[in-house]
Amino acid sequence: MGQTLFSSDFRLGILGGGQLGKMMLYTTRKWDIQTYVMDKHDTAPAFEGSTVFFEGDIMDYEAVLEFGRQVDVLTIEIENVNVDALEQLEKEGVAVSPSSKVLNLIRNKATQKTFYQEYNIPTAPFEVLETPKVTDRSFPYIWKSAEGGYDGKGVKVIRSKDDLNDLPDQECIYEDMIDFKLELAVIVARNASGDMTTYPVVEMEFHPEANQVEYVLCPARIDDNIAKQARELALQVSHAYNHVGLLAVEMFLTQNNQLLVNEVAPRPHNSGHYSIEGAVTDQFEQHVRCVLDLPLGSTDTVLPAVMVNLVGAEGHTGNVVYDGINEILAMDGVTPHIYGKKETRPFRKMGHVTIVADDIEKARKLAEIVKGKIKVVSS
Amino acid sequence: MGQTLFSSDFRLGILGGGQLGKMMLYTTRKWDIQTYVMDKHDTAPAFEGSTVFFEGDIMDYEAVLEFGRQVDVLTIEIENVNVDALEQLEKEGVAVSPSSKVLNLIRNKATQKTFYQEYNIPTAPFEVLETPKVTDRSFPYIWKSAEGGYDGKGVKVIRSKDDLNDLPDQECIYEDMIDFKLELAVIVARNASGDMTTYPVVEMEFHPEANQVEYVLCPARIDDNIAKQARELALQVSHAYNHVGLLAVEMFLTQNNQLLVNEVAPRPHNSGHYSIEGAVTDQFEQHVRCVLDLPLGSTDTVLPAVMVNLVGAEGHTGNVVYDGINEILAMDGVTPHIYGKKETRPFRKMGHVTIVADDIEKARKLAEIVKGKIKVVSS
Repeated sequence: MGQTLFSSDFRLGILGGGQLGKMMLYTTRKWDIQTYVMDKHDTAPAFEGSTVFFEGDIMDYEAVLEFGRQVDVLTIEIENVNVDALEQLEKEGVAVSPSSKVLNLIRNKATQKTFYQEYNIPTAPFEVLETPKVTDRSFPYIWKSAEGGYDGKGVKVIRSKDDLNDLPDQECIYEDMIDFKLELAVIVARNASGDMTTYPVVEMEFHPEANQVEYVLCPARIDDNIAKQARELALQVSHAYNHVGLLAVEMFLTQNNQLLVNEVAPRPHNSGHYSIEGAVTDQFEQHVRCVLDLPLGSTDTVLPAVMVNLVGAEGHTGNVVYDGINEILAMDGVTPHIYGKKETRPFRKMGHVTIVADDIEKARKLAEIVKGKIKVVSS
Repeated sequence: MGQTLFSSDFRLGILGGGQLGKMMLYTTRKWDIQTYVMDKHDTAPAFEGSTVFFEGDIMDYEAVLEFGRQVDVLTIEIENVNVDALEQLEKEGVAVSPSSKVLNLIRNKATQKTFYQEYNIPTAPFEVLETPKVTDRSFPYIWKSAEGGYDGKGVKVIRSKDDLNDLPDQECIYEDMIDFKLELAVIVARNASGDMTTYPVVEMEFHPEANQVEYVLCPARIDDNIAKQARELALQVSHAYNHVGLLAVEMFLTQNNQLLVNEVAPRPHNSGHYSIEGAVTDQFEQHVRCVLDLPLGSTDTVLPAVMVNLVGAEGHTGNVVYDGINEILAMDGVTPHIYGKKETRPFRKMGHVTIVADDIEKARKLAEIVKGKIKVVSS
């Protein structure tokens, strides 16, 4: 269908207008592909740059149905959408990627973990519970809410019975705490024709308090053999799901060099933001290629890169100011991305910065300097 | 002023909504800078992605004045704007880059050439005429209309008296035909604080019939010493103009290795399109940095690149189809840019393709393959 997509009547739809949707629009603008975006708020980052913006609730069955009927291909930038509406749209002939089937398998962590077990995909030992209660699992372990978790919400370390007390009364999993050396991620791209490719393995460093990714390094500082295994494991996961689009596969590398799949996201992912500056084809373009069934682009690295999340500083709520941004703009190879959220609050994802350099250690050092200079505060 | 530009009430204005304006918007979206665009037609490529779009004639004094009064900083993406209005806006305190003074010096070729002479900037020998007539200049030479020339229009080789007959009755220059080895270009960036930098020298290959650039190669295949001289000459030109923004300086390299300035453009330029994929900081971001007086970004090359213009094929007028685009999307390191003009006509600039590779000769070979595969036709 490729040659009819460009400067034509063809319409791509995106559910969700956050930063991931916004960055997808860089590609649809570059290729002049008409793109419809739906989000609850017209202050959403992806308002500008969309061809048509629909104000609507992506969790609402009727709203998603009405929106989806106006586009030729429908994708998402966030998993929390009305999947029943997607199922109906698929029946009506709209190409939906990721499919309602994959979304149903992924957005519930209990289902997701059970799926790995069934497909012999290595993952941390776990049990599924209807609601939190005392089991014979030995402390400490991790409690995870089955649905609705995001950016560290819905996750808690359980060190004793008492930690179970104030948990929400809903489906959850308990998972063994893994003694891991590193957290890694691999993004797999697969188009509707079945072509597949993987991006290089990235390494994630988490902020100890906020449980959000603080640095993403590409390439990860691991040996080639482990990198190869990680990419193969990610391909295996994408195969199992029969997924079309990007699939970001997060993994633990244990002290014994074992790889365990932690969780996946069926869309562009924070761990792939570095690719805008660091890869031949950035992840947002690659996702668009996948869902439009275009040939996949090269995932080769052009320069080693580190990505730093810009999150709202503690103690600041209100109109955002990027303190120190001029200083980091003066540093070679440093590119800030500002998502366009007018209001900051503690730990809110407001943007990110990519740092490219000749080698990864140099980029990592620069990233720490960047982090020290820029602060997301309120005016 | 830097930290008040992002996600704030600050407003950048762009006169002209063509592809250059559109590509500037990639940066203002990335940084969430409110950007107002004015163009005659709301089908302009820069309609989508602008914060506010004004339908208006950029050659009209009142329209430009009204538009300019609503922004904090005003720039252009094409030289043919109402410069008197810009002068008035400058008096009223709007930061205008490029300045009305520079635009007046540049947009008339007679004035531009005379300026080089005064500043001892090497350029091809020429004479200025009120209107075309026979002089004692020996044939062949080049006739150039003083104003209104663009993309090879307003330029003609004069081989005999007869060639003068059907020229328009307006100011022009006659210029010696230069026996050149290569056409080169250097883009200079200068911000309001006076920081300056140059991009690497690029080499331009022209289409023999259309007199439009067919390939741009970065880096140019010239020796380091000539590259150094070319960058210094470009800096000299930017200094002479005291210009803020990008200045693209086109040059001839003669058979005797002399560099002669041909013409300049005070804005992002076709010869810098490769930088989106090929440079750490692309020319559009750099122009935005300049006019907003932000620190300049690195102009380093990340990968050797060749840019191919996508122009409308002869014999095709009407709704555009990019025949073969899927085939080139399947090639590693090949990125098409579609400007978003719905209608094609012969030689109309409809887009461009960037090809990156490990070395420039490899990229150049791939570029020829790309050129053979993709055709801009009508449906």
